[in-house]
Amino acid sequence: MHISKFAAPEILFGRGSLHQTGECCRRIGANKVFIVSDEGVMAAGWVEKIIKVCQASGLAYELFYDITSNPKDYEIEKGVQRYQFSECDAVLGIGGGSAMDAAKAIAILATNGGIIHEYEGADKIKRPLPPLLMIPTTAGSGSEVSQFSVIVDSSRKIKMTIVSKSLVPDIAITDPQTLVTKDAELTAETGMDVLTHAIEAFVSVAATPLTDVQAKNAISLVSKHLRASTASRTNEEAKAAMAMASLQAGLAFSNAILGAVHAMAHAVGGYLDLPHGKLNAILLPYVMEYNFLAAPERFGQIAALMGQNITDMTAAEAAKRAVYHVKQLASDIGIPQRLSDIGFTEDLILPMSQAASEDVCLVTNPRDIGIHELEMIFRKAL
Amino acid sequence: MHISKFAAPEILFGRGSLHQTGECCRRIGANKVFIVSDEGVMAAGWVEKIIKVCQASGLAYELFYDITSNPKDYEIEKGVQRYQFSECDAVLGIGGGSAMDAAKAIAILATNGGIIHEYEGADKIKRPLPPLLMIPTTAGSGSEVSQFSVIVDSSRKIKMTIVSKSLVPDIAITDPQTLVTKDAELTAETGMDVLTHAIEAFVSVAATPLTDVQAKNAISLVSKHLRASTASRTNEEAKAAMAMASLQAGLAFSNAILGAVHAMAHAVGGYLDLPHGKLNAILLPYVMEYNFLAAPERFGQIAALMGQNITDMTAAEAAKRAVYHVKQLASDIGIPQRLSDIGFTEDLILPMSQAASEDVCLVTNPRDIGIHELEMIFRKAL
Repeated sequence: MHISKFAAPEILFGRGSLHQTGECCRRIGANKVFIVSDEGVMAAGWVEKIIKVCQASGLAYELFYDITSNPKDYEIEKGVQRYQFSECDAVLGIGGGSAMDAAKAIAILATNGGIIHEYEGADKIKRPLPPLLMIPTTAGSGSEVSQFSVIVDSSRKIKMTIVSKSLVPDIAITDPQTLVTKDAELTAETGMDVLTHAIEAFVSVAATPLTDVQAKNAISLVSKHLRASTASRTNEEAKAAMAMASLQAGLAFSNAILGAVHAMAHAVGGYLDLPHGKLNAILLPYVMEYNFLAAPERFGQIAALMGQNITDMTAAEAAKRAVYHVKQLASDIGIPQRLSDIGFTEDLILPMSQAASEDVCLVTNPRDIGIHELEMIFRKAL
Repeated sequence: MHISKFAAPEILFGRGSLHQTGECCRRIGANKVFIVSDEGVMAAGWVEKIIKVCQASGLAYELFYDITSNPKDYEIEKGVQRYQFSECDAVLGIGGGSAMDAAKAIAILATNGGIIHEYEGADKIKRPLPPLLMIPTTAGSGSEVSQFSVIVDSSRKIKMTIVSKSLVPDIAITDPQTLVTKDAELTAETGMDVLTHAIEAFVSVAATPLTDVQAKNAISLVSKHLRASTASRTNEEAKAAMAMASLQAGLAFSNAILGAVHAMAHAVGGYLDLPHGKLNAILLPYVMEYNFLAAPERFGQIAALMGQNITDMTAAEAAKRAVYHVKQLASDIGIPQRLSDIGFTEDLILPMSQAASEDVCLVTNPRDIGIHELEMIFRKAL
């Protein structure tokens, strides 16, 4: 039998939970917190709110928000200098995947030194990180619970995937209220990112019952609530459901890892600096079409979780319905259907397939896959 | 919206995982581990095996196994003296709920001082515990992942329930191989304990989607595999399924807390020193009959999870089928059906109802319940 591992942060979930940020920081030993965020989250007012909550708990802070979407190596270096100079003793990430992944990368360098490139791949972190607390404001990347951080190597224009149990934050605070400031496009893209996490984790070769239960509920929640969440900023039921889906998909993929969709999206996202969620959303059905052969029964279950009655279908038929439902959902919420719609050109197929073939996420893809197959999928998705 | 919290240890699961005990102890900072176990587990050979694995990692150890079923306050005091005297720096519990709960209680006193009675109730632990690692050998108590420890106050003959996030161990290692040394009676009783954890967590007023997914899968696994696991010591598929069920039920009840079954079983178990699993197994259907009114739809889902087709039933009908299926399962695996079968007498109804009414587990019971109702349920179960 395979030995499986499962790790999760302590989780606070619910409307108003962000008001507990200060006492949570205190509890994990913080005196001065290094707050990592980005301009979008700043503009939405969440950072200001968190700062007030921290101050009320008597915490000092240093704010760093020079982070762009798909955070870059040089931003991390700048961040860690500020961390050291300001004599902080804990890191607090607020935002989407970019802010939280950057917060993790800064935390790595804070105690382990060197440059972030040295930590690419699995289990390269040797020393414990400073106390880490995350507040996601998109539903979302799942970075608040995951053992992943993805940082762009700006000279190679490649996304470096860093995987380590040390990257699982100490505490994740998910307050669905933070989702009301997202526009429809970001809601749709990050929501499809959640679905991609859940589906890739569910069909991963490293899936276990502990990850399956989370992945299945996330798939079901996304398929029930992402349309409504995209349609309205103020639909609280839909926001809470998507926040929970993001959390559960995060717990699933952090421990079951991912697959070819992420390997391909990392390659293209690093090179063209495109939104990660949008890339996943476009690639997901094409990769599902390729992968279903490896586990028709699992893919069939995905169709059932998305509301399809599969009782009179073969596993293969049900699996194909799963692809259909994913495409329908993406189309309903306005996701482009082809890579060419977002600036991807044919000449990129070969180099992007090469880059994707080296991504650590490919290891857990359910169907054997190499450069040739990646090329074929890119071509179909073009 | 209610703010919900979720905490879990790092988990290793799978056959052969106990061979990683040494490196896990090292990783959480141990140099000399205080191993807490009991005579039954010693006789089964698991302690000897673990000691060898620890020695291979260069760890020193001190072994303490003066623990009885339903561990007593004076055993904890003896244990902590040995811990201090032996200058250990980590605690490793191996066994069922008794050994693991005792290990936790010793860890509390090791860094917090005083006597164990001072920590009864919720959130009384102020200082961090020494690194804690648990290896369950029954499926089981769920103590390896839970924030609970239950210790008998020997003068009052009452079980003290201690609840604190600090009691969530650092690492839980679940190796289904350890289950092959359990006899049929212990397998049946501990298996029904798992079902009780899952059902009480699922209908708890503190249930969340994060606990529901675990509880549901645990109910389904127990109903599919407990009969086969009771029938054969060597059925590996059934043992692995029950080990996973125990883990998932543990994650569920640790975070959603329990209900009246546990409140009543704690009262009687403390007074008559009877096996906890057997008491839960007898009481579960009677409490379900009382509770279903509070959440017929949830109880109906339990019937579905146990294999009942509920499509043409009302929620109330389905809920009653759930009670029926629990009774059937208990009867098939040889659990007594009445409290009077195991030495409980009518004169105990009043004092036991009184004791149960003060148990912290009652707070999350789905239906309002007081001494009068507890008396009524005890009388039905007599």
